[in-house]
Amino acid sequence: MNFISSMNRAFYALFAFWFVLTFAGLTAAQAEDPLPSWNEGSTKRAIVQFVKDVSTQGGSKFVPPAERIAVFDNDGTLWSEQPFYFQLAFALDRVRALAPKHPEWKQKQPFKAALEGNMKAVLASGKHGLLELVMGTHAGMTREEFANTVRDWIATAKHPKTGRRYTEMVYQPMLELLAYLRANGFKTYITSGGGIAFMRTWVEKVYGIPPEQVIGSSIKTKFELRGGKPVLVRLPIINFINDKAGKPIAINLHIGRRPIAAFGNSDGDLQMLQWTTGGKGARFALIVHHTDAKREWAYDRKSSVGRLDKALDSARANGWTVVDMKRDWKLIFAGDAR
Amino acid sequence: MNFISSMNRAFYALFAFWFVLTFAGLTAAQAEDPLPSWNEGSTKRAIVQFVKDVSTQGGSKFVPPAERIAVFDNDGTLWSEQPFYFQLAFALDRVRALAPKHPEWKQKQPFKAALEGNMKAVLASGKHGLLELVMGTHAGMTREEFANTVRDWIATAKHPKTGRRYTEMVYQPMLELLAYLRANGFKTYITSGGGIAFMRTWVEKVYGIPPEQVIGSSIKTKFELRGGKPVLVRLPIINFINDKAGKPIAINLHIGRRPIAAFGNSDGDLQMLQWTTGGKGARFALIVHHTDAKREWAYDRKSSVGRLDKALDSARANGWTVVDMKRDWKLIFAGDAR
Repeated sequence: MNFISSMNRAFYALFAFWFVLTFAGLTAAQAEDPLPSWNEGSTKRAIVQFVKDVSTQGGSKFVPPAERIAVFDNDGTLWSEQPFYFQLAFALDRVRALAPKHPEWKQKQPFKAALEGNMKAVLASGKHGLLELVMGTHAGMTREEFANTVRDWIATAKHPKTGRRYTEMVYQPMLELLAYLRANGFKTYITSGGGIAFMRTWVEKVYGIPPEQVIGSSIKTKFELRGGKPVLVRLPIINFINDKAGKPIAINLHIGRRPIAAFGNSDGDLQMLQWTTGGKGARFALIVHHTDAKREWAYDRKSSVGRLDKALDSARANGWTVVDMKRDWKLIFAGDAR
Repeated sequence: MNFISSMNRAFYALFAFWFVLTFAGLTAAQAEDPLPSWNEGSTKRAIVQFVKDVSTQGGSKFVPPAERIAVFDNDGTLWSEQPFYFQLAFALDRVRALAPKHPEWKQKQPFKAALEGNMKAVLASGKHGLLELVMGTHAGMTREEFANTVRDWIATAKHPKTGRRYTEMVYQPMLELLAYLRANGFKTYITSGGGIAFMRTWVEKVYGIPPEQVIGSSIKTKFELRGGKPVLVRLPIINFINDKAGKPIAINLHIGRRPIAAFGNSDGDLQMLQWTTGGKGARFALIVHHTDAKREWAYDRKSSVGRLDKALDSARANGWTVVDMKRDWKLIFAGDAR
């Protein structure tokens, strides 16, 4: 073995050593990125920094695990909400399915418009009309009967524009965020304007959020014994609308502690974000801004669905984190990732 | 060494071996008893059998941990409720503390009776009178102000008969039962007629039950910005009375799944017990029957507080487990055990 050969061997050994250190390290780091669908940048950094802050024992911003409560709006924050809330698509499908039992609907708005597929007229019926649709299709059965109907629908119904199942239109970056928070001791909640019973049938499977961590709008139920068997019957009476100032009220009723992190996308989430950030210690507020007309939808201040106006001003004034979907998200839908 | 001596040694060695096996084993078994304050008998056996059944993987009655939901009434089930609900004692103390700001109370029932310490007249004012007392003392402040008032009271107030702090009048056997269920994968909830905000200030420390697992009666709250700071103000308007048929309704709203085990002590718990046992698979219903006039109180069918009449009949008809406090509990209060 001459000197050169010996040097070569040493060189190759060193090179191999460097190679292993560098690329094995890099691969490990990539594998460990808990938010792979988020582009590097200030948004991702803000999320990671907050999670590190509150979970570093002995740090000045440490929060005990029991107090790591994170609340998420659903429509427009965890899944899409265009061209109209997905639960409205469910209600319209139910109107069609139940129409044979309701001959009066042929003459009665907004049922008539729904049966004719006239979405413009349905939406023009306003809040009162939409409530009529919900009451006509979500009440009058037991909780189990309703849950089965939703399960059947969510397993088969498809979005009119994308042709995908609705649960394939949940946001992959938000799924990663939910898992990341839970891996760091957070308890993740949904607090949505959508129906609590509607959501509970599918969110555990899709988001990993159990029924007891779902807060939403609700109708009243009635306890009855039917042939000695207890049932809860859904009544056509509003119990609670979980929107705007209703969100902190329902968070207080259901959770009883103030969240330290809140995630929303519209003015309906403003009070929840204010309530969350109004507490002492480390707090985090994030707004999903729909800026990607190509991969999803682009809308904010002038949209009738998911209007983001005051909350966007508030985010800027208060330094809340704003997700620019187009810039911050490598991919949008969980369906894309499969 | 002769033969006898050798036999003696062998005998002593065997004896020592048997002694270690027997008594060390016994001591270990005793140390492992999760319910040491429960006397051996059919009640304790029924509890242990149910827990084994639902937590034995592969067994015919196995229940996945996520579905192991257990709900507990509070007054009369986890702590005493005589001579009247402890929260009423709080309300009466608040009437005295707030009286200087309410000169009109001197002329107004039931406040007048409360200020004069005339409990007979207070109780005679009925449901409406008691609601007046609650509204006059539990509303008109933020959630934080109310929580602080309860915390101060629960740390210092003493029961008129026992002279103990109220939290020393929680039942030691029930504390062991809560811990035993949790050690076997159960999520334990309180579902009480008592105030949700009242209970949440102390039950985590005393029962190990976090605020988000407390369901109770509530008044409405209002979200407000005060000088830019968000607050939730408690209003003198009933939101929900968590009693009788209200219990399964609230369980459905807050938890969204049917419990597999329910624990109560009065007719106010009947519908909760029916709802829980009405589901499929392994179910457990238990009633605490107050039979110990010496160590606690003895009352059932004719008591105005915590009446147990229809639920006792139902327990017998349906084979629910009934705790005979006098017979089944080695000791009553957590205060006794310290």
